[in-house]
Amino acid sequence: MQANIGLIGLAVMGQNLVLNMNDHGFKVAVFNRTTSTVDEFLAGPAKGTQVVGAHSLEEFVGLLQSPRIVMLMVKAGEVVDQYIDKLIPLLAPGDIIVDGGNSLFTDTNRRTQYLQEHSINYIGTGVSGGEEGARHGPSIMPGGNKAAWPTVKPIFQAISAQVDGQPCCEWVGDNGAGHYVKMVHNGIEYGDMQLICEAYQLLSEGLGLGADQLHEIFTEWNQGELSSYLIEITAAIFAYKDTDGQALVDKILDTAGQKGTGKWTGINALDLGIPLTLIGESVFARCLSAQKDERVKAAKILPKATKTTLTGDQQDLVDAIRDALYAAKIISYAQGFRLMREASKEYGLSLNYGEIALMWRGGCIIRSQFLNNIKQAYTANPELENLLLADFFVEAIKKSDAGWRKAVILGIESGIPTPAFASALAYYDGYRTERLPANLLQAQRDYFGAHTYERTDKPRGEFFHTDWTGQGGKVASSTYTV
Amino acid sequence: MQANIGLIGLAVMGQNLVLNMNDHGFKVAVFNRTTSTVDEFLAGPAKGTQVVGAHSLEEFVGLLQSPRIVMLMVKAGEVVDQYIDKLIPLLAPGDIIVDGGNSLFTDTNRRTQYLQEHSINYIGTGVSGGEEGARHGPSIMPGGNKAAWPTVKPIFQAISAQVDGQPCCEWVGDNGAGHYVKMVHNGIEYGDMQLICEAYQLLSEGLGLGADQLHEIFTEWNQGELSSYLIEITAAIFAYKDTDGQALVDKILDTAGQKGTGKWTGINALDLGIPLTLIGESVFARCLSAQKDERVKAAKILPKATKTTLTGDQQDLVDAIRDALYAAKIISYAQGFRLMREASKEYGLSLNYGEIALMWRGGCIIRSQFLNNIKQAYTANPELENLLLADFFVEAIKKSDAGWRKAVILGIESGIPTPAFASALAYYDGYRTERLPANLLQAQRDYFGAHTYERTDKPRGEFFHTDWTGQGGKVASSTYTV
Repeated sequence: MQANIGLIGLAVMGQNLVLNMNDHGFKVAVFNRTTSTVDEFLAGPAKGTQVVGAHSLEEFVGLLQSPRIVMLMVKAGEVVDQYIDKLIPLLAPGDIIVDGGNSLFTDTNRRTQYLQEHSINYIGTGVSGGEEGARHGPSIMPGGNKAAWPTVKPIFQAISAQVDGQPCCEWVGDNGAGHYVKMVHNGIEYGDMQLICEAYQLLSEGLGLGADQLHEIFTEWNQGELSSYLIEITAAIFAYKDTDGQALVDKILDTAGQKGTGKWTGINALDLGIPLTLIGESVFARCLSAQKDERVKAAKILPKATKTTLTGDQQDLVDAIRDALYAAKIISYAQGFRLMREASKEYGLSLNYGEIALMWRGGCIIRSQFLNNIKQAYTANPELENLLLADFFVEAIKKSDAGWRKAVILGIESGIPTPAFASALAYYDGYRTERLPANLLQAQRDYFGAHTYERTDKPRGEFFHTDWTGQGGKVASSTYTV
Repeated sequence: MQANIGLIGLAVMGQNLVLNMNDHGFKVAVFNRTTSTVDEFLAGPAKGTQVVGAHSLEEFVGLLQSPRIVMLMVKAGEVVDQYIDKLIPLLAPGDIIVDGGNSLFTDTNRRTQYLQEHSINYIGTGVSGGEEGARHGPSIMPGGNKAAWPTVKPIFQAISAQVDGQPCCEWVGDNGAGHYVKMVHNGIEYGDMQLICEAYQLLSEGLGLGADQLHEIFTEWNQGELSSYLIEITAAIFAYKDTDGQALVDKILDTAGQKGTGKWTGINALDLGIPLTLIGESVFARCLSAQKDERVKAAKILPKATKTTLTGDQQDLVDAIRDALYAAKIISYAQGFRLMREASKEYGLSLNYGEIALMWRGGCIIRSQFLNNIKQAYTANPELENLLLADFFVEAIKKSDAGWRKAVILGIESGIPTPAFASALAYYDGYRTERLPANLLQAQRDYFGAHTYERTDKPRGEFFHTDWTGQGGKVASSTYTV
């Protein structure tokens, strides 16, 4: 009997996906460039399963039923292109290649078209949920050539996380739409994690709380509106002891690594002109954490003032920090969904935001109770422009507002950095400000560069130039097309 | 007599540069694709000068002395490439093309190499100072093929701004180095302008001050540490009246435009992994200001609380806002120069930061007293890692610290957004924090993705993985190279 699907790339995610597929009764063929890994896998984690291994690409392809599905779980970038070019001569028209890595969506756009020219149907899919998700039920976000979907759908929807009887996997859209949505997911993940870290620093450095107390607080927070995978694992992390009985997390170096997808989301937002401030600050915060040596040096030269004696009831401050975490999280998702709305328009993606929320509701790293509320907001109003305008979130922020401001002020007064909490607050206050000070900015640009401005007492689209000094020229700046 | 230099592109900057060159005794030939503009220019602003016009590229090239210098002041992008390809067959080996537009530095890298293959020496130069700078003395930042510099130098150094007897123009470096530095200049410009706008909003909305009072305040600020072109023109802007006697700035629509270079700086910082938070927030703030209709709608749904009655002496608060503006400005420049240091290393640019500060000291939009202090910091220590560690800036921030925090808190309590002031403060507090909460982040990444972490009690470069749940696998995440 031939394999239902083949997977290339036996790192963390690849191995776990294979075992997941096997659990659901699919026969999987595997290949890995370092072929000894195939043998180790078959002798180890895959022992006793239906999984079959190959030691060459030709052998691998030969094991697959038709139409063949070849899933790549390899390093994003040129490795994917190399595999595609090796596979094309081995496959037949109508066969399918799936890229399940964290590829850049523009690469997936290109590859979908390229393979279509070779009569091969391409899917670029996001897969989220880490090690455990891949093993027991990830969130899967497929896009690309829709002709491939009917063949792949039964497998993906079987192995994905299930929430309320629905698979956390739906067709996202053409070309790179799946990888685009995965990219935004990863950016939001950076944001969620940064927010938790800022809460952690306020609690530990600001309020002097230790790992055991932090474990209790996050456990309690996980019972409420913040209920989510990340809060759950954070509580677990604080409880984990090293061999000497001390909290292991206190021994971990404070230098964050990153694979890059968070920065892509920031870059995309800059390209599309959509404020994605919280994710931007979160990416930069990781960069700053990586500058460990510089910080150690700077801490000696720029020492902080003696800690202010914090006045105020401790529980009150803990609640304020929780409010900040919740409100800032709302801002982050509002910004992320607003970005996707712009991308949908710009790239012609026809994204379904409610479905995306559902795909993220389970399986993935950012899964949470919160995503239900987002799904419901879009069900109530599919044309919703910004989550901040949905009733549920209007109320949620109103309730958290005072605590949010209190927590940010706490950080400012104590010298504890809260870039994401503060940035989110500035965005919220800016978003609901009818008149921002950009009139001055436009005046300045017209003054020094004759860039022109619009007026409050004239229709939009009518531009004016002023000779502010009485000495300037009459030539206004346009797009310099000469 | 043949022309010393030819310029193509008679928009704002082009026309003014030509007249500037003419003032300094250079004979300039001009061409423009819409040739009627040539005639209008010669009959208008260039009447009575030595400027000569051409109505075709061939005629234009024929007017130039050898080695020819052709300066392009055209729209960045493919228009530049189109002109280059039209010029190559008309030029001779050793001739020079200069791109004075806001080109992306990677394009300049490419064009420098391409033209070298055609024996033409290319310069990509930043030109800053807007309309007035171009006319009377811009800051000029040339890079590219150094073989072209001796020919171009006498002209550029004659027409550039002069400060303390030195031209604000020096050779920056190879390939796209000049455009790179111009890009960072423009990013910093976005930052400086955003900071002024935030101060404006705090003063006007927070303290209820009107245009006349703002004019006085900015005039006073221009006498002190904030003395700069942007502060000067801001003061002038507040004094300018519309025909009805009202301040014109109050009639300007609060939607900022942008040409794009600010976003490039943000994108580059994300690429290089260097925190450029203030410029990032500034670019996003312009994006938010452009979402005017959304803000008007949101303001109705998310109304702000009744304004808090601000306690505190008004002058005290004005001084606090000034302190915030100054301190945040220091952060912005520190981040910008730190970015250039990373770029210099990554791209092999050998940038001279003191010289860059000098080039910006006059002529350009960001020119200020402040840049002298930066120049001096690098003269004292050419290996300075971050401006925040230089004595002058350590003291400057220390003095401004209390007011800075007070101003940001003022914004938070009043619902007035100060994304740049707050982001700068969070960066400052983060930069001088020896232990950031990223240890938790690393624990989370290892928990869900087996990404591994370093330990505080082990040497750097040694990575560890923990099976946090006691259920996970042994496969750790690496770069997924399989």
